[in-house]
Amino acid sequence: MEPNLKKIKAIALDIDGVMTRGELIPLADGDLLRIMDAKDSFAVRVAAKKGFIIAFISGGSTPGLEKRCLHLGCRPENLYLGTRGKLAAFNDFCLRNGLEADEVMYFGDDIPDTQVLRACGVGVAPADAVSEAREAADIVSEYPGGHWCVRHEIEELLKSQGKWVFDPDRFDEIF
Amino acid sequence: MEPNLKKIKAIALDIDGVMTRGELIPLADGDLLRIMDAKDSFAVRVAAKKGFIIAFISGGSTPGLEKRCLHLGCRPENLYLGTRGKLAAFNDFCLRNGLEADEVMYFGDDIPDTQVLRACGVGVAPADAVSEAREAADIVSEYPGGHWCVRHEIEELLKSQGKWVFDPDRFDEIF
Amino acid sequence: MEPNLKKIKAIALDIDGVMTRGELIPLADGDLLRIMDAKDSFAVRVAAKKGFIIAFISGGSTPGLEKRCLHLGCRPENLYLGTRGKLAAFNDFCLRNGLEADEVMYFGDDIPDTQVLRACGVGVAPADAVSEAREAADIVSEYPGGHWCVRHEIEELLKSQGKWVFDPDRFDEIF
Amino acid sequence: MEPNLKKIKAIALDIDGVMTRGELIPLADGDLLRIMDAKDSFAVRVAAKKGFIIAFISGGSTPGLEKRCLHLGCRPENLYLGTRGKLAAFNDFCLRNGLEADEVMYFGDDIPDTQVLRACGVGVAPADAVSEAREAADIVSEYPGGHWCVRHEIEELLKSQGKWVFDPDRFDEIF
Repeated sequence: MEPNLKKIKAIALDIDGVMTRGELIPLADGDLLRIMDAKDSFAVRVAAKKGFIIAFISGGSTPGLEKRCLHLGCRPENLYLGTRGKLAAFNDFCLRNGLEADEVMYFGDDIPDTQVLRACGVGVAPADAVSEAREAADIVSEYPGGHWCVRHEIEELLKSQGKWVFDPDRFDEIF
Repeated sequence: MEPNLKKIKAIALDIDGVMTRGELIPLADGDLLRIMDAKDSFAVRVAAKKGFIIAFISGGSTPGLEKRCLHLGCRPENLYLGTRGKLAAFNDFCLRNGLEADEVMYFGDDIPDTQVLRACGVGVAPADAVSEAREAADIVSEYPGGHWCVRHEIEELLKSQGKWVFDPDRFDEIF
Repeated sequence: MEPNLKKIKAIALDIDGVMTRGELIPLADGDLLRIMDAKDSFAVRVAAKKGFIIAFISGGSTPGLEKRCLHLGCRPENLYLGTRGKLAAFNDFCLRNGLEADEVMYFGDDIPDTQVLRACGVGVAPADAVSEAREAADIVSEYPGGHWCVRHEIEELLKSQGKWVFDPDRFDEIF
Repeated sequence: MEPNLKKIKAIALDIDGVMTRGELIPLADGDLLRIMDAKDSFAVRVAAKKGFIIAFISGGSTPGLEKRCLHLGCRPENLYLGTRGKLAAFNDFCLRNGLEADEVMYFGDDIPDTQVLRACGVGVAPADAVSEAREAADIVSEYPGGHWCVRHEIEELLKSQGKWVFDPDRFDEIF
């Protein structure tokens, strides 16, 4: 069955393997660096500006990650970092924002994401997600995590709702 | 129509996806690291030494980026970091440097670059630019952003003007 | 001869080229950063939670690496960083944990790993290991170091023992 | 003409694009990070232990780079960082170490390396070197810079002299 993009009002995203290619760079103080992509980031910010509610649900949690997620348009109350049970976080996100589960698009790439990929309205797995996540997803992107899966699928979502449009004279409102 | 490289006196570049492959590494203090390429950097520095005016026009803005751009031969007044409307920055750059728009080669890879890609003399999009940028560009490089698009197209530009020549005994003047 | 995965009780891993693609990022203070992968890391943590004893045996040694290895489920006494002779470290690991050599799966990618690859029960070399390591190994993974060799082979190991199973309601015990 | 590996007593290397894939990561304080490879590093250290004199000749110069080069077996007096004219540095290196130019293998990937590639005994260019460097070189490696060009060609060099041999019981002397 074709996933119903028209109903989607919110976008929730795992981070490692979705907003990144999975790279983790351990620092001396225990912090972990990650590598995101500019084109993926652009799409998330545009979606936020166009009115989609953004959430990040990740087992990871670092100060740099938190600042980055807020910069991408996620409101503090929708930031689920250091999360263990992702389905509980997803349900909490829906409840607090008055969303039905099928109004949310979720991006996930690994086993801890499979429950949410099934529970949400449109589950998206990157091309290089593990088989369990690809099977649980409604859409398997042609692009990998951290390299345009997020960009492409958010573009498709916004296009399906006529929202992938830009007023070049008002770019400053978007960025 | 073949782009007219002979008229080009200045080179303006977007950064993410042009001077980089798009990687963004968020740090704990909110700073963002980027990854540039040595061969691309060489070409920008050579162009600056050969008399081309260099500008960087980017939404990004970090202390490391600023130092790097100056090192690449961009004069402080031609550094447009943290820019929202790129066309306004481009027009300001032309005005302040007494340049006609068609005397400037511009490199851009994403939607915020499309207006400048159309306004400038020779618009260049990396091989992996988004479709909107590739369509707006005069040249779509065979090389991707952050990995030799900048090197290759600057080489072509300098060769077209007979300036991709090196006096091996005076390398120290170039580097 | 088919390697005997059923007997394996412990997993020992080299780091550079196994848990990473081999990248080393020298810092000003002499520290070295490395880049690990989230899916590989997931597999190591799952194995630790499922009762496998985890060891890291590496010539490298940095504070960030030490913290990361402990986070992945390696107990401090099984962390052999800054190791010169890997076979001696391997033997010490077996002795201290009451393990026979053929109860240990070892991952290694370069010449210093060849002795342990031969001595252990199941030696695994990433797809991009040097020829000497691939020849010494029982299994040459179809995946490279730092990009799913560890994930795939640990999955196979756990599946062979019926342990690659997850109770979705108790993910918090695993992560 | 087949390059004469038998005469080689010393190995001099450019850094960006040779010991790295060309990545440069600008930091806030003006420092630049680079990314080296573990298998390449292994080969340089082995060559140093086997008696080859190691030099690094690079336009780059950072504290991290300096420490790394010394760790790889380069003696302080053979470290030419921040170099502008590479041929002068190369000649100085030969003079100070009592070497004939044709006793040195040199690795370089870009235009500033071409003079030394021609002057040395065996010039090596990575697979992804610029055409000018590949033309100046005696050997064009099948491997790119930062990813096994250095490993492969140093292996070939040591094998040609019967020195790519390891006493497994004395690894600690090599590493």
